[in-house]
Amino acid sequence: MVHTVERTVRTRGQGDAHDVTADAAGAVGRSGLRSGIVTVFVPGSTAGITTLEFEDGVVADLAAALERLAPREGTYQHHLRWGDDNGSGHLRAGLVGPSLVVPFREGELLLGTWQQIVLLEFDTRPRTRRLVFQVMGE
Amino acid sequence: MVHTVERTVRTRGQGDAHDVTADAAGAVGRSGLRSGIVTVFVPGSTAGITTLEFEDGVVADLAAALERLAPREGTYQHHLRWGDDNGSGHLRAGLVGPSLVVPFREGELLLGTWQQIVLLEFDTRPRTRRLVFQVMGE
Amino acid sequence: MVHTVERTVRTRGQGDAHDVTADAAGAVGRSGLRSGIVTVFVPGSTAGITTLEFEDGVVADLAAALERLAPREGTYQHHLRWGDDNGSGHLRAGLVGPSLVVPFREGELLLGTWQQIVLLEFDTRPRTRRLVFQVMGE
Repeated sequence: MVHTVERTVRTRGQGDAHDVTADAAGAVGRSGLRSGIVTVFVPGSTAGITTLEFEDGVVADLAAALERLAPREGTYQHHLRWGDDNGSGHLRAGLVGPSLVVPFREGELLLGTWQQIVLLEFDTRPRTRRLVFQVMGE
Repeated sequence: MVHTVERTVRTRGQGDAHDVTADAAGAVGRSGLRSGIVTVFVPGSTAGITTLEFEDGVVADLAAALERLAPREGTYQHHLRWGDDNGSGHLRAGLVGPSLVVPFREGELLLGTWQQIVLLEFDTRPRTRRLVFQVMGE
Repeated sequence: MVHTVERTVRTRGQGDAHDVTADAAGAVGRSGLRSGIVTVFVPGSTAGITTLEFEDGVVADLAAALERLAPREGTYQHHLRWGDDNGSGHLRAGLVGPSLVVPFREGELLLGTWQQIVLLEFDTRPRTRRLVFQVMGE
């Protein structure tokens, strides 16, 4: 039994983060399934999905760490070849990854109390992101 | 067909690592399923799941690399806002991620010979971690 | 309904990358399933799976960022204990991870236009990698 839902999220560019836990929980609820997984996936190569304690401090700290790892104003082969300015976003996305699988049981996501599912925007400009929530189980 | 098992692991705080491969293999074995996936998931926002060659050297090397990326004694907005001291743990957890999906076939996990499933503790204090092993397949 | 296929990829050592999107799409197509997930998994502790815009610039930029994070010629406990020279590869693999789950619907992977599924070789020598593509759905 597979149920797939999508939504779009408008982001403000690099460093922006959105809590999408309620969307994942809603997809599970509407599926009617009791036990299984939800796959949260962002199409695109300059965004990521992970879990965080979703509060402004952690979001800012993560952006600062990723800036050290892949500086926005760094020199990137991707810029030289394609005239883009979002090489930092491609690296951050490749490291964090676009996919997260969360198990549920008795209809409830098995997340921690302070653990939210978060869309991270890494592109250097605002984007309209499509998000996939796919529920599979019984 | 979905089978979910949980166990708890007591950790010693940041840098501690536990090989949970046998738990994942055991969950697959007890499910009676022959082919499918096991999702290994840690609820909480200061721990991670990945695979490593589980030997003390690799575990120490990874802790050192993460210390460079997100120093334990660094300055974090999370500390300033909440009075916590585990901002480094939140960052490491967000980058490594809380979820790992491993396929199995003929009842056997398709891991490499020197590849173990590892729980990484990133919090600055010892924790009792709940771990979820969810098996899905046929 | 679970379908598992494998292929091997010969790599040239650290920094090499291979686009395996067509293999994942082919596994979905041959499964006959319309909706579900494909799990792409690399057995072994010195390789990774993620998505990238697969072009030489991004691949080179990612290798450079990982070199800063886990330098090939760095000092590693793993080398001192085991006489190996691939400690940098173990770290990169642990951070990127060996597993990626991509949803599909109406028989099509829900990837972005410029988003490819990529095998990253992190070992310091050429390897013959086994790759698992496991399709599950309905």
